[in-house]
This record gives sequence, structure tokens and C-alpha cells, in this order.
Amino acid sequence: MLVYIAEFLGTMILILLGDGVVANVTLNKTGMKGAGSIQITLAWGLAVMIPACIFGAASGAHFNPALTIALAVDGSLSWSLVPGYMIAQFSGAFLGACLVYVLFKDQFDATDSSATKLGVFSTGPSVPSMGRNMLSEIIGTFVLVFAIKGIGQVGAVPPGVDKFLVFGIIVSIGMSLGGLTGYAINPARDLGPRIAHAVLPIKGKGASNWGYAPVVIVGPVVGAVAGALLYSAIPWA
Amino acid sequence: MLVYIAEFLGTMILILLGDGVVANVTLNKTGMKGAGSIQITLAWGLAVMIPACIFGAASGAHFNPALTIALAVDGSLSWSLVPGYMIAQFSGAFLGACLVYVLFKDQFDATDSSATKLGVFSTGPSVPSMGRNMLSEIIGTFVLVFAIKGIGQVGAVPPGVDKFLVFGIIVSIGMSLGGLTGYAINPARDLGPRIAHAVLPIKGKGASNWGYAPVVIVGPVVGAVAGALLYSAIPWA
Amino acid sequence: MLVYIAEFLGTMILILLGDGVVANVTLNKTGMKGAGSIQITLAWGLAVMIPACIFGAASGAHFNPALTIALAVDGSLSWSLVPGYMIAQFSGAFLGACLVYVLFKDQFDATDSSATKLGVFSTGPSVPSMGRNMLSEIIGTFVLVFAIKGIGQVGAVPPGVDKFLVFGIIVSIGMSLGGLTGYAINPARDLGPRIAHAVLPIKGKGASNWGYAPVVIVGPVVGAVAGALLYSAIPWA
Amino acid sequence: MLVYIAEFLGTMILILLGDGVVANVTLNKTGMKGAGSIQITLAWGLAVMIPACIFGAASGAHFNPALTIALAVDGSLSWSLVPGYMIAQFSGAFLGACLVYVLFKDQFDATDSSATKLGVFSTGPSVPSMGRNMLSEIIGTFVLVFAIKGIGQVGAVPPGVDKFLVFGIIVSIGMSLGGLTGYAINPARDLGPRIAHAVLPIKGKGASNWGYAPVVIVGPVVGAVAGALLYSAIPWA
Repeated sequence: MLVYIAEFLGTMILILLGDGVVANVTLNKTGMKGAGSIQITLAWGLAVMIPACIFGAASGAHFNPALTIALAVDGSLSWSLVPGYMIAQFSGAFLGACLVYVLFKDQFDATDSSATKLGVFSTGPSVPSMGRNMLSEIIGTFVLVFAIKGIGQVGAVPPGVDKFLVFGIIVSIGMSLGGLTGYAINPARDLGPRIAHAVLPIKGKGASNWGYAPVVIVGPVVGAVAGALLYSAIPWA
Repeated sequence: MLVYIAEFLGTMILILLGDGVVANVTLNKTGMKGAGSIQITLAWGLAVMIPACIFGAASGAHFNPALTIALAVDGSLSWSLVPGYMIAQFSGAFLGACLVYVLFKDQFDATDSSATKLGVFSTGPSVPSMGRNMLSEIIGTFVLVFAIKGIGQVGAVPPGVDKFLVFGIIVSIGMSLGGLTGYAINPARDLGPRIAHAVLPIKGKGASNWGYAPVVIVGPVVGAVAGALLYSAIPWA
Repeated sequence: MLVYIAEFLGTMILILLGDGVVANVTLNKTGMKGAGSIQITLAWGLAVMIPACIFGAASGAHFNPALTIALAVDGSLSWSLVPGYMIAQFSGAFLGACLVYVLFKDQFDATDSSATKLGVFSTGPSVPSMGRNMLSEIIGTFVLVFAIKGIGQVGAVPPGVDKFLVFGIIVSIGMSLGGLTGYAINPARDLGPRIAHAVLPIKGKGASNWGYAPVVIVGPVVGAVAGALLYSAIPWA
Repeated sequence: MLVYIAEFLGTMILILLGDGVVANVTLNKTGMKGAGSIQITLAWGLAVMIPACIFGAASGAHFNPALTIALAVDGSLSWSLVPGYMIAQFSGAFLGACLVYVLFKDQFDATDSSATKLGVFSTGPSVPSMGRNMLSEIIGTFVLVFAIKGIGQVGAVPPGVDKFLVFGIIVSIGMSLGGLTGYAINPARDLGPRIAHAVLPIKGKGASNWGYAPVVIVGPVVGAVAGALLYSAIPWA
């Protein structure tokens, strides 16, 4: 049971802090409007690192169905745990996004653009193009999973330092590739909040762009599995 | 006695560096005006981390009455120490704010906006709304205390690395949620300098906005206690 | 064989993330356009650090012919490995740049400036001046290699922490000297992508500025060898 | 002899990277002009950290006569070493500034403002006021030395992690107080380059503002000694 509590609470904090920074720098009438992509990418890295510290020992701190599936594929995780992990991740992400809405309600009300409002919750492409957007999510998630597995090559990393390496991986993907599709690289991170966007009574919110959903489901899962498999295929020793 | 000296000097340095960065990037005629929220949030993280290095072994480096109370509530700290900790924290914060005023006096004199001047000392909401502002402080302080307790799950973190994890927590809360109320998440951090603002002969300073004080007392204490209690309630092992 | 696979894949990821950040913040129609040199320099540091984590144990994570040659000169690496390392580095860099092109194709198409497009792939001077540009690359690479060797003086750095020191070295060179020539400090990092620029069907791409190539070959090799030799000449103990 | 070589080369690299970042973001025709104080403060932190890694074991990596004097005052360093340390520090700083000039000569030539040119080499106040400027340098250097001594309280910090703590201290002082006087907090860092400014044939360079020199000599020495003495006076155990 602890593993599911950990994935639920961890993903909730991930989205509270992650969707939080997007709200914090893009909505009108916040004190940090306009801080831009450096703050967004650093804060997303921290949004992963902090719950990873708290819940890493309990559940492995996936917070990401694509990572969970990839670890099941390469044999690191039992398939029997996958459904519970995913339910915890999606529901935690949904609840985290609801918290962001409650906290930033006055700022949502003060913002006209429906695209900006949706952008707090979910990702979207800077240039819509189903194939290339999916490639962006595949490669971003490939790097994520290949690098997470790859940290194992460093050797006896002290506890805590490994969390900063994860921080570095997330920040790197965001800073280098994030301007293409907003680097979902995680179906729960995108769809949990997208469901929240669809059901919450956000003033002038516009559509939830469900047509884009396949990109953030298929792309991350394909990329994550490819990353885990390539890692397994390399004759490391 | 050492614990109180440590909390006093540590909170003084915290506010010297923390209120310092706000002065440094918002007052007229400083060489770093306009650097924005990335510099503010990074520097506040360092403003906590540096005295935490110096005084962590001596007092636990709370520098924050809400954290002190929460640790007393969950049994980590004796209640008999709480009054002394709080006196040290508030007086250190007051003195730190006075130092910032003396250092930046020429810059205060060159700045017209009374809101900017108050903003160097104390926090305030971007959209005033007693309930939602308090919720912002509750959730911010909840994350602070839950994460600080949660670092204990990481295992044998080497000395020094734990300080960087604390840095990460402070920066994360600031970058993700700080635009709502300026993330006091600490009654001493806000009220010590607010008292300084009230008593110092600052040119054109305006009111000290004492009506907002309940938010930064009740919010952080409620959030901190909730964070400590939820942490205790989780069946970690 | 593993060493060459490691150098090939590592350099590919280096360029994917490194050229990626330049594309991400300079091309039109990316979501992070205009983030500037702080994001570029931090992300290049991560672009080195992440493959260094994954492949450091396998190959030493050079990803840089100048470093490979310098380590051969000072006796740290067998000369017999040098040709294979260099082939792996150049081909990995070429492939990484091709990936960046495929990912950012829509953004390349939306950008008019041929200089901006070339700048995603390869470096160039802010003020062309063969001698001074070469001096810039010599000193930048000197600092790189002297500092990498110098980390050995720190003593028993825990695994993982050493990777962050490398991150710091790369970011430092970029932030302090990078505005002169774009800090190639690595012939493969510049020429692999320059070849990609020359052969890829990039719309309106302009010339590949091969006249500048000697600067990024001779400069880094001279600087790297000088750094390794000065390090060896200091009577450390 | 090694200690003096270490202080000489270390201070040279400190100024190459530290004055380098100021040139890199303030002179005309560099590729990173306008990056602002976040890049300057982060890069100065790295400019200290990197030579501290290389030369810390050899000489203690002072690179700062105020720190050297303070450590002699509190008994950590033999007074007999002080003159040699200081000669090495000032001459290293002078040479580092000359390197910056040679590297950025074209950019100096393209910049009109003599104040900007002097600002690459040496510090200056945002609001001139002998007393308050000196107080700023006293408090900045006090924090520097008190915190460096204070890291000793953290316990068994692993090698390498301590360097990042020093990085954090330098960045903190810069981000929080640096807009007042440019945080020399080190007589060699300011006067070595000021001498270089005076003697180098810089086009349109203007005066070297020697009248400000007492601030960056007296201030840092007073602050450093006060920091070391207060640290010694605290009954830590």
C-alpha cells in the first residue's frame, strides 16, 4: 500500500510545484510574471527532485507511467504493480492540478488568454505537427530513461547526490528540447492536469485540446521503452 | 545558551541575505536592479543554506517559529526550548532587517514607491484575498516542513549535501508558488522585518500593513504543523 | 569496443542536448526563444554532465578529440586508442546534429537568418580575428583541461559529485569567456555539426564557414595539450 | 614554494574567469552582452570554486589577502607566509586581468563608456559614499569569512562538496549585496586588475579611480578579521 500512497502523494507534489511554476510565471497578477523558461526549467527539475527525496525509498519515485512501464519491460518492476502505480500517478497529478487552480484562482480570473490557462495544466506544441511532436516526446523521454538507467554506471553515488543528478536530467531535457512541445515526457504529468482543466469551472477556459493527447501517451511510452531497451542492450561490463 | 545564539545569529544572517536580495534587485540605484525573480529565489535559497551550514549543528537551524512549533508538536523538540527559539528568531530577523536598511539607505532614499520599500522588508500578496493568501502560506509551509522531514527518507545523506537539499526546497517553493504572496512561510522572516520597517526612520515609507500579519502567522504555523503531522501519519516502513 | 560505443553515443547525446539548447532559444517559433546565454551555458554544462554520468566508467567520457590527444600526450591514454576515439566523437557529433535538425525542422523553416541557423550547429566569433579567436579557444580549452586534471587534487571526491565539478567547469568557461567565440573548446563539437550543416537540406542555410575551421581544430588541441603539460609540470606533492 | 605557485596561478584563474564574465556580459560586441547579474554572480562563484578545486590542497586556496590576514590573526596560518601569499595574490590578479584585456581587446575597442571598461577590471559603488561603501565591503567580507569558517561546523563534508559550499557563499554575497559596491570583498581581486587598468594601453580608458582604493583595502580586511574573531568567540561545543 505504501508504494501507491507514495506515488500518489509524490505525483501530487510534482504537479503542484510543476504546474505551479507555469502558473507563477505566465498568469497575470502574479508577482513573478515573465520570469521565463530558466525559472520554469529549474523549477520543474526541483519539482521532480523534492518528491523523489521524500518518496524514492518507498516507491522508487517514478511519478510517470512511461517510466513505470519501461521498468516493467526491462524487468526492474513487477507487472503486477503497474496498474496501481498508474492509478496513483494519474490521480495524484489530477489532484495537484486542482490545488494549483485553487491557489491561483484570482490569477486565472485575471488572465484572458485561454491558451495561457491551458498551458498551466498541460503541454502543447510550439508548431503543431503530429509526427514531429511525437518524435520530440519520444526523444525527450528516451533521454530521460536512458540517463536515469545510466546513472547506475556512476558507481556508489552517495544518497542525496543521486537526486541532484535526476534534477540535472530533468533540467537538461527542458532547457535543450523543451521549447518544442513543452516536454511532457510523462503521460500522467500531462493528462492528469488536462482532465482537471476539463472538469474545473475555470473562467473562459476554452477547449482542453484532447486531440493532442495521443502525442503525450504514445510518445513518452515509446521513448521510455526504447531507452530502457537500448540501455539493456549495451555490453557495459 | 548556544542554541539561542545560533538561532539569533542565523536568523540575522538569513534576513541580511534574504531581505538583501530583494533590496538589491528592486531599489533604485543598485547595480543589480531588475534582475528579477530568478535571482530572488536562488538567493533566498542560499540565504537559508548558508546559516544552516554554520548553525545547523548548534541549534538545528530552524530560523522559523513555524518549523520550531511543528517540531515541538511532533515531539522532535522540547516545548521548553520553544519560547527561547522564538525570541532569538524574531530579534535576529529584526536586526538583520536593520542591517539591510543601513546598507541600502542611499538606495531607499532614491526609491519613491512605498510599496517597493515595504517589499524589501516583508511579504505581501499579489492579489489581496485573506482566505486564499492564507491558503498559499499554508501550502507553501506544508511543502517546506513535509519535505524537510521527508529528506530523512533519503538515508545516509553526507554532511553538506543535506544543506543543498534544503536549498532546493526553498528555491522550489519560491519559484513555483512565490508569486502569490511572496512566500513568507515563516512568521519571523516577515514580522521581524515588518517591525523594523515600522520603527526605522525610512524616508517616505508608508504604512507597514499590519492587517496582513495574521496571514503570515496563522498560515505558516498551520501549514508547518500539518506537514509534520502528515509525515508522522504515513506508515513509512 | 565498448569504449568506442560509449564515445559515439556520449558525443551524440552531448550534441543533441548542446546544439539543442541553441536551437531551443534562438530559432523562431520555439516556446523558449530569447532565453539567452544563462540558459545556453547552464544547458551546455548539463549536456556534458549527463553523458559523462552514463559513459564515464566505460570510456572516461572525453567526447572531445582535444582532450583525448592531451591525455595521450601526458600518458593517461594509449595512443593506439586515439584514432578510434576520434572517429567515434566526430561521427557521434554529426549524428547528434542531424537529430537536432530533424527535431527542430519546423523552427529552422520559420527562421530567416542563415547566421542563426549555422549558429545552432557550429560556433563562430563575435568579432572575427583569426589570431585572437584562436587565443580564445586556446585559453578556454587550457582552462578546461587544466581544471579537469586539477580535480584530481581535491582528493576522494564521491562518485557523482565529480560530475557536478565537470558541470561547473563547462558552465564557468561558457559564462566567463563564451561570448568571444562561442567556446567550441572541442573540435568534434564544432566540426561534426558543421559537416551536418553542410550536407543537410536546410532551407536557406547559407555557407558553412569552413574558413573558420582551423580555429576550432588548432586552438582546442594547443590549449588542451598546454593544460595537460602545465599540470604535469607543477610539483604538486 | 608550491603554496605561492598555487596562490599565484589560482588568483590568475580567478580573475581570468571573474573579470572575464564582466567583460563577457557588459562590453559591446560580445555574444553574451546584457546577460546581467545572474550570470555575473553565478560565474564569479564558479571563478572561485574552480581554482579552489585545483589549488585547495596545495595552499588552502585563499586568493584573497583579507582572508589570508584573517587566518593569520586567528592562528590558522603562520604570519611568515603572509607576505608571500599576498605577493602571489596581487601578481596573479594583475596577470589575470591582463589576459582578460588581451582576449577582449576587440570588444574593449568597440565600447565607448570608460566606466564600463573600468568596471571589467575593478569594482565601484552604485552610490558613492565612503562610509557606507566601506560598511558594505566590511559586511560582505564578514559574511564570507564567517561562513567559510562556519562550514567547519557541518562536520565531515566529502571532498568536492565543500567546494560547492564555497561556491554558494560567493554567489549568495553577490546576489544579495553585490549591487552596492560590486562586492570586491578581496583587495587583490580589485587592486591587481586596477593596476592592470592603469598600465595597459586601453583605448579611451579614463581614470582608474584610485580614490576608491581605501574602501577595497580597509573594508575587506576589517570584515575578514571581524568574521574570524567572532567565529572564534562563539562557544561552539
